[in-house]
Amino acid sequence: MLDRAAVDGSLRFRQVRDYSERLCEGLTSEDCNLQAVAETSPLKWHLAHTTWFFETFVLRPFKPDYRGFDDRFQVLFNSYYNGVGQQHPRPQRHLLSRPDLAEVLAYRHHVDQGMVSLLDQPAALKQPEIMARLTLGLNHEQQHQELMLTDLKYNFACNPLAPAYRSGSLPPARPAEGGFQSYQGGLVEIGQARGEGFGFDNERPRHRHWLEPFTLARALVTNGEFRAFIEDGGYRRPELWLSDGWSRVQQEDWRHPLYWQPDDTHPGQFTLYGNQPPDDHHPVCHLSYFEADAYARWLDARLPSEAEWEHACRQDQGDAAAARTPPALHPTGADTGAGLRDLFGQVWQWTASAYAAYPAYRTARGALGEYNGKFMCSQFVLRGSSCATPPGHSRASYRNFFYPESRWQFTGLRLARDATSADL
Amino acid sequence: MLDRAAVDGSLRFRQVRDYSERLCEGLTSEDCNLQAVAETSPLKWHLAHTTWFFETFVLRPFKPDYRGFDDRFQVLFNSYYNGVGQQHPRPQRHLLSRPDLAEVLAYRHHVDQGMVSLLDQPAALKQPEIMARLTLGLNHEQQHQELMLTDLKYNFACNPLAPAYRSGSLPPARPAEGGFQSYQGGLVEIGQARGEGFGFDNERPRHRHWLEPFTLARALVTNGEFRAFIEDGGYRRPELWLSDGWSRVQQEDWRHPLYWQPDDTHPGQFTLYGNQPPDDHHPVCHLSYFEADAYARWLDARLPSEAEWEHACRQDQGDAAAARTPPALHPTGADTGAGLRDLFGQVWQWTASAYAAYPAYRTARGALGEYNGKFMCSQFVLRGSSCATPPGHSRASYRNFFYPESRWQFTGLRLARDATSADL
Amino acid sequence: MLDRAAVDGSLRFRQVRDYSERLCEGLTSEDCNLQAVAETSPLKWHLAHTTWFFETFVLRPFKPDYRGFDDRFQVLFNSYYNGVGQQHPRPQRHLLSRPDLAEVLAYRHHVDQGMVSLLDQPAALKQPEIMARLTLGLNHEQQHQELMLTDLKYNFACNPLAPAYRSGSLPPARPAEGGFQSYQGGLVEIGQARGEGFGFDNERPRHRHWLEPFTLARALVTNGEFRAFIEDGGYRRPELWLSDGWSRVQQEDWRHPLYWQPDDTHPGQFTLYGNQPPDDHHPVCHLSYFEADAYARWLDARLPSEAEWEHACRQDQGDAAAARTPPALHPTGADTGAGLRDLFGQVWQWTASAYAAYPAYRTARGALGEYNGKFMCSQFVLRGSSCATPPGHSRASYRNFFYPESRWQFTGLRLARDATSADL
Amino acid sequence: MLDRAAVDGSLRFRQVRDYSERLCEGLTSEDCNLQAVAETSPLKWHLAHTTWFFETFVLRPFKPDYRGFDDRFQVLFNSYYNGVGQQHPRPQRHLLSRPDLAEVLAYRHHVDQGMVSLLDQPAALKQPEIMARLTLGLNHEQQHQELMLTDLKYNFACNPLAPAYRSGSLPPARPAEGGFQSYQGGLVEIGQARGEGFGFDNERPRHRHWLEPFTLARALVTNGEFRAFIEDGGYRRPELWLSDGWSRVQQEDWRHPLYWQPDDTHPGQFTLYGNQPPDDHHPVCHLSYFEADAYARWLDARLPSEAEWEHACRQDQGDAAAARTPPALHPTGADTGAGLRDLFGQVWQWTASAYAAYPAYRTARGALGEYNGKFMCSQFVLRGSSCATPPGHSRASYRNFFYPESRWQFTGLRLARDATSADL
Repeated sequence: MLDRAAVDGSLRFRQVRDYSERLCEGLTSEDCNLQAVAETSPLKWHLAHTTWFFETFVLRPFKPDYRGFDDRFQVLFNSYYNGVGQQHPRPQRHLLSRPDLAEVLAYRHHVDQGMVSLLDQPAALKQPEIMARLTLGLNHEQQHQELMLTDLKYNFACNPLAPAYRSGSLPPARPAEGGFQSYQGGLVEIGQARGEGFGFDNERPRHRHWLEPFTLARALVTNGEFRAFIEDGGYRRPELWLSDGWSRVQQEDWRHPLYWQPDDTHPGQFTLYGNQPPDDHHPVCHLSYFEADAYARWLDARLPSEAEWEHACRQDQGDAAAARTPPALHPTGADTGAGLRDLFGQVWQWTASAYAAYPAYRTARGALGEYNGKFMCSQFVLRGSSCATPPGHSRASYRNFFYPESRWQFTGLRLARDATSADL
Repeated sequence: MLDRAAVDGSLRFRQVRDYSERLCEGLTSEDCNLQAVAETSPLKWHLAHTTWFFETFVLRPFKPDYRGFDDRFQVLFNSYYNGVGQQHPRPQRHLLSRPDLAEVLAYRHHVDQGMVSLLDQPAALKQPEIMARLTLGLNHEQQHQELMLTDLKYNFACNPLAPAYRSGSLPPARPAEGGFQSYQGGLVEIGQARGEGFGFDNERPRHRHWLEPFTLARALVTNGEFRAFIEDGGYRRPELWLSDGWSRVQQEDWRHPLYWQPDDTHPGQFTLYGNQPPDDHHPVCHLSYFEADAYARWLDARLPSEAEWEHACRQDQGDAAAARTPPALHPTGADTGAGLRDLFGQVWQWTASAYAAYPAYRTARGALGEYNGKFMCSQFVLRGSSCATPPGHSRASYRNFFYPESRWQFTGLRLARDATSADL
Repeated sequence: MLDRAAVDGSLRFRQVRDYSERLCEGLTSEDCNLQAVAETSPLKWHLAHTTWFFETFVLRPFKPDYRGFDDRFQVLFNSYYNGVGQQHPRPQRHLLSRPDLAEVLAYRHHVDQGMVSLLDQPAALKQPEIMARLTLGLNHEQQHQELMLTDLKYNFACNPLAPAYRSGSLPPARPAEGGFQSYQGGLVEIGQARGEGFGFDNERPRHRHWLEPFTLARALVTNGEFRAFIEDGGYRRPELWLSDGWSRVQQEDWRHPLYWQPDDTHPGQFTLYGNQPPDDHHPVCHLSYFEADAYARWLDARLPSEAEWEHACRQDQGDAAAARTPPALHPTGADTGAGLRDLFGQVWQWTASAYAAYPAYRTARGALGEYNGKFMCSQFVLRGSSCATPPGHSRASYRNFFYPESRWQFTGLRLARDATSADL
Repeated sequence: MLDRAAVDGSLRFRQVRDYSERLCEGLTSEDCNLQAVAETSPLKWHLAHTTWFFETFVLRPFKPDYRGFDDRFQVLFNSYYNGVGQQHPRPQRHLLSRPDLAEVLAYRHHVDQGMVSLLDQPAALKQPEIMARLTLGLNHEQQHQELMLTDLKYNFACNPLAPAYRSGSLPPARPAEGGFQSYQGGLVEIGQARGEGFGFDNERPRHRHWLEPFTLARALVTNGEFRAFIEDGGYRRPELWLSDGWSRVQQEDWRHPLYWQPDDTHPGQFTLYGNQPPDDHHPVCHLSYFEADAYARWLDARLPSEAEWEHACRQDQGDAAAARTPPALHPTGADTGAGLRDLFGQVWQWTASAYAAYPAYRTARGALGEYNGKFMCSQFVLRGSSCATPPGHSRASYRNFFYPESRWQFTGLRLARDATSADL
């Protein structure tokens, strides 16, 4: 008799794992070993680390007959799990020419085989911990799939030859109506509810939160709108900036979003399709929190809190919007209807909320408890998803987080304001 | 006929201004020009900068016949007000041997004279902006009075001779009962209400906030309790630390709170009274957020949110406690009664809340708008007040804020926990 | 009729160029793109840069019909020739995954073809400037051949898997008699004489130099001898070190030569043959100038001046010794006869001479003048050659130079002393 | 009967010691505690360290009844003598507000008393080691007297108020004839001969050195001449610079000598007399080696070797010139006669010679052996003396040395060239 769940688990596993390797199509093994700064790991390292995750947290503890591929990989491909042991230093990941790409792929297939063999055992499915770790591992791999694209983009951008990851040109955006949408607020519920499917620990528990009335922009801020900020001296006016942001602007001589090309009067930008001409109607991206915040202040607006964003998203369309959007590797704008547009699949949207634990948050026991909680300091939450987020990895409760100076993700913004009585 | 308000304003002005100079008693002019790191400004600079504040924001705009003491001081003693113009670089404040201490005192007296003459004009009192800036200037000076003590302590601690700022020995603490106190929470009001007297803009507006039930420790964590954490390997166990905190522990080789002396098995510490023997019952202080957070995690507790702290403080005793406590220049513990003890006057208490704008927060217009808002990034809120806070500068709604790695303020902690049904 | 010189030039060109590619045998394209620190360029970059040299200095100026392979390579593969134009930043050479290794090899063959076609034209040979640049280019490529090996070794050493470049084990050294050999000195001639074949501009002009009597050790210092220094506390005794050296010892926590493995009581070391057991009779290598100097001081000896070294070398054996030694990729000691042993082919020998211009030294005109002269500051001269020096690239007048803290070259030492009357 | 030598020693001691204190006249205690960078120690520290030298090397070992002023000063005021024990970290000297200036002066007088009492004992004079250390200590103090002025100048220059150390204006220079003077060279003797009076160990032993014919400029390079270099793009032309120098030019954005004021088209400069208008005929000063070398290359000239300088100096005028020149605290040019002018008393003259040991150089035993030898690496020799050199501290054999990027000393240059047959 067919074990339906086993088949589904196994199928899903293969799909996600294949997607990682498909991302490397068209790349050389040298491309896959680039690391310009500590933050942008080599693709080969991502391929190996996601594999290490299954080997370490599923196969070694739960498959007694599993034989490790190479014990030295336990250190080489550990990212930050102190509970598992030592880690190869992050800034030196590009120094691992050995194992080469072929050997890392062999490592993947060795672990895949072990996983599939484990998943094919009906008994295994009765161990909820295995299935929980499988699901966590797949979501973990999807997070790295997005990083593979953003890291590759950063690394390629350091090459004066401006290599194109994919060929073709970017579609023009259809300009859409703007305006703001109002929300009443009150005592709302935030966070993932039981029964909503997989979520990371940081999305839970669902809890009550008080919201004052607010409004949210229907559309994402565009390149053209952001250029107006630049032309109004936005990068030269300290009164628009947080103090830490202003320091950064001066130290690193920021004058425009990352990847914009400064030489032209009407600038283009580096994309995963190589250098591309500018399009004023595309959502602006590769902004730091500091730039998003300064832009909002310039317009006498503000960034939404993450609770406002989630509440509005659930009110408006919920995860229906999340499901619909395909990744396009560059934000070109998609939605044109009424309501909040482009919540997902274009750019991550900076919120004004520092990344912190929800009330009554508990981390998991053991090394997997290091997944989220230990990063709850000095970072800001981003909501939605981007053009690099893999399919099936977006949802209303999702909390992404980065340091406020980070710019190499596909990050943009949607404006918010306090609601006035006229709004409601 | 006597102008009562004028007399009061003028008296208060003199009191606060005198207090700054009294803090320098017993110090040499060389002591007053120390700056070990960018953060710890020379006392002379504090004396001049607080004077610059009154000159820049009151005398120059509101006293037409005011003649500046030295126009070059507008740059030299501007801290961070980009709206006012250039600033002398912060790390180079100790290079200003000229003007010397005597000249800075002359500058103070010149500005004091101008202020008193302005305040003595009854007409002036009818200009609410003058009175608002006077009050802000005095509260600003009080903040610097605390910094004068913490900066001096840091600078003195760099001298192997361990100079004592004040003579005498520290009183032993009376051990007091511990335990936790429970709060029901619900939809509470947070922030300073109209009519509560002076508050900084970041304490307002008063707003609604939802709190789940929680408990707060009656007492502050003590040296003895913190030593148990150390002896349990607290500084060597990464699972207790935030990721950024663990990096800091390793980079700077932290093994104990700042100023503890590592050479002894039973360590003493450097204080404003010179090196002093340890007292296990004194509140622990000079902890970073990272250390406070790790200590709480070690005990399966957590830091309170700032809303929890303020709500409990108001419930319990409110500003009555704030008014009572005299500064002693070292936290020795004072209260022994029931309820929350030592809310004020001992150590600032780290909260789990990132420093952020309250809903509907608005900064002031112009350069004074730089006072608070531009620092709302990557810092954490501390509540209460410390043994170095000047009299009259504590209140339930007060929000202090520092970066999570900061240790040179008098900073400690009070534990919190989610309430269980048994607690309520 | 056969043009003998053309045939020879062309043959020599092919031999040297082939040797560079042969050095990459057994390596993956990922191996060829490693760069751990700015100093250790990727092998692929060396392959391209040496090609750029011929393209830039021979083909573009002297072969009218030459078509550049890719004009963008003029910037990518320029090392430091400001006279030629911009350079890709040195620390970012590893970010050039494009062009990939295959394309760089195609670039090499394109340029090789151009060169061979140029060399095959008899007319070309009459242009002495072409032949001079050909010879310079080949010697330049040989210098990079040595760097390819030392850079690869450094990069491989950063990989915990300790990859072996070549397989096999190292031959044991035959212990040889030690002792010192005396030289009378006087007014000697130093530097390359006309007619001695190719030399870099820094080896000329030959000039007079006064030498007091001195003695030189017959043998290189060995691992076993250097271990005695370590065991005597050599790395912990500041009185043995130059001040800058002692700072370096403390900052970088030096306790032994580079590549020695500290975990064992009797340490092995990382080599181009992977990790290898120690051999006390092999010459010690991978020493900085600071370590060589401290070792000599420990024995109440000193390093020779470069003039002493050259004079003794010419007296003893001259370039006969240089010609004989084959590269073995690790210094195992070779000579056993009388006289100065292992002058060439084992380790470069630090001298006490700062790298400076010889009297009446003149740099070449134009960009090629940047070859040597602009580095005459803060570096020290090394004499001899190493186990990584390609065949035909050693001679008595050769001046190698590195910063005193450099350790990644095959660098060791030979002791010297002032001669006493008993010596002479 | 009068002990003539005792009287002389004691008198000389008092004169040199008094001179250090006289240098502080007109300064506040805050002025005396400035330290902008690690290299520029507070004057108070210099006063204490020179005292520590006599206490440590004379009184403690040779005066049995000497009682130390404060044992903790042994660490506080040790500069770099590892043989004596620990040192207070150099960059933190400005953090020593205690002992204050008054206490340091008391320390000086305590030690002076001990020294005078020791020197007044006729027996003492029979111990040559005491007299040798006395003399060394006085010469050591004179070196620090020059540093007091150059360090103060650097520290004052960081203050936007541009404090003047001395009042008055600078005398204009009398333009003098230029031209070069020729020397035959040959086998010359260099270094201090026995009987020439005091010299540091690095000036000895006198030894033979071969010199090719050369010429030396009669005059120092002037401000006007150096401005021509700037106006010809000297700071923007990499071909004129050593590679390390060019890096420094770009990193630190050098565009003119230190202390020149860039705002004016015809720039003035900061001096010990405050800001002063430019004078084209004054010797240029505050040049790094890199700038001196680039200037010489621009004129197709070079810097002299130290042997050339010393040989020419002895030929020309010898120490007669050294004796004559009074310190004026700014180089204004003095000599107008024939021969080499301004060898002493204006600016130290960079030579092309790396600072190294003379043949057969031996350091002293014990901690005093650290005086010179351990700095023989990566520095260049300067010859002559400057306008800040104290009287009686100049001589033909004197070797000053600094890193090639150093600019805060009074450093300038005199050109040299190889002699042609026409010159001789």
